Amino acid sequence: MDLKGKFIVIEGADGAGKTTQANMLCNFFEVNAIDYLYTREPGGTDVGNEIRNILLNFKGNINPITETILYSAARAQLIQDVIKPKLDQGINVVADRYVFSSIVYQGIALGVEEKVVADINKIATESLMPDYTFYIDLNVESSLARITGKKDRIEQRGIDYFKKVREGYISLTKKYPIITIDGNRNKEEVFKDIVEHMGLI
Amino acid sequence: MDLKGKFIVIEGADGAGKTTQANMLCNFFEVNAIDYLYTREPGGTDVGNEIRNILLNFKGNINPITETILYSAARAQLIQDVIKPKLDQGINVVADRYVFSSIVYQGIALGVEEKVVADINKIATESLMPDYTFYIDLNVESSLARITGKKDRIEQRGIDYFKKVREGYISLTKKYPIITIDGNRNKEEVFKDIVEHMGLI
Repeated sequence: MDLKGKFIVIEGADGAGKTTQANMLCNFFEVNAIDYLYTREPGGTDVGNEIRNILLNFKGNINPITETILYSAARAQLIQDVIKPKLDQGINVVADRYVFSSIVYQGIALGVEEKVVADINKIATESLMPDYTFYIDLNVESSLARITGKKDRIEQRGIDYFKKVREGYISLTKKYPIITIDGNRNKEEVFKDIVEHMGLI
Repeated sequence: MDLKGKFIVIEGADGAGKTTQANMLCNFFEVNAIDYLYTREPGGTDVGNEIRNILLNFKGNINPITETILYSAARAQLIQDVIKPKLDQGINVVADRYVFSSIVYQGIALGVEEKVVADINKIATESLMPDYTFYIDLNVESSLARITGKKDRIEQRGIDYFKKVREGYISLTKKYPIITIDGNRNKEEVFKDIVEHMGLI
């Protein structure tokens, strides 16, 4: 099995099963001796984790445009210090969230103009786009029910916000090369779907 | 004397006398019963001060593009929460640094493409530009000699960096409506020059 320098992004709402699937994919790569690196957003670098702390835990007001720009700052550092160098070395990168999260969470759901979010992110990522983007789709009630532990600043937004997030993701699947994965199944079935799309089984 | 809702920006290298002049201008407004607000960058809002702390004190690596984006994040919040509302109320805003600082410090001196810096800042500021921009010009050696106390992350950059900063500012004065003020005089003479340019004396 040969897979080198592919950039694989897993997208979806909080609670949709992104991280579970990313972990299963990493485990699959491990077992099959495929080089990979797992990253998550926001964060993944030292300064990115400082920015993550503001984004997820800051108690005061952060305006939508500021939030958008902060996510792209963390992403810029992650791209330059981690993702691009690893891809250049032929290592596959499994990313838990990427630009589409910003277009959906800050753009469509929070009201920042979609083009503005896309423009900032083009600069931050030097227009690097994934080889595979999987969107795990799950109804809002099921997603929210799966969030465990203390909710962060973003997760605390109400059900109406997450309805817009889901609608946002669905609208993006019609405009971008995003593969929709039905998340309303057990995790093994969901995972089989992902690796089949990648031609790995 | 009537001055309402004007956006006045003081620019220049660290140690050139910006903050002294901004304070003298605020004092002049105070004495003449002119409404004003003083802001400084990065910071000026709660989340902006968190971002300021990263920019000036973070010990790890921050890439030039990440630094550029972080400055614009703090600026976006300052514009929306402070500068625009005050200007709309007819209050004059005296800003210690603005977009030109980013074009010079992150663009010209640190090597981020000038257009990229300008584009990010157009988004962050909703293209709001000052009514008056004063650039206080001083030779690099004199500026650096005037920095007192422990140098922050930016101030720690060497003399070659600050030579590019000065050259950068001078190049901008040829492209933008920026008034150059000779900073190599005593502070009263410098200040007289500024208020004369504003038609206040």
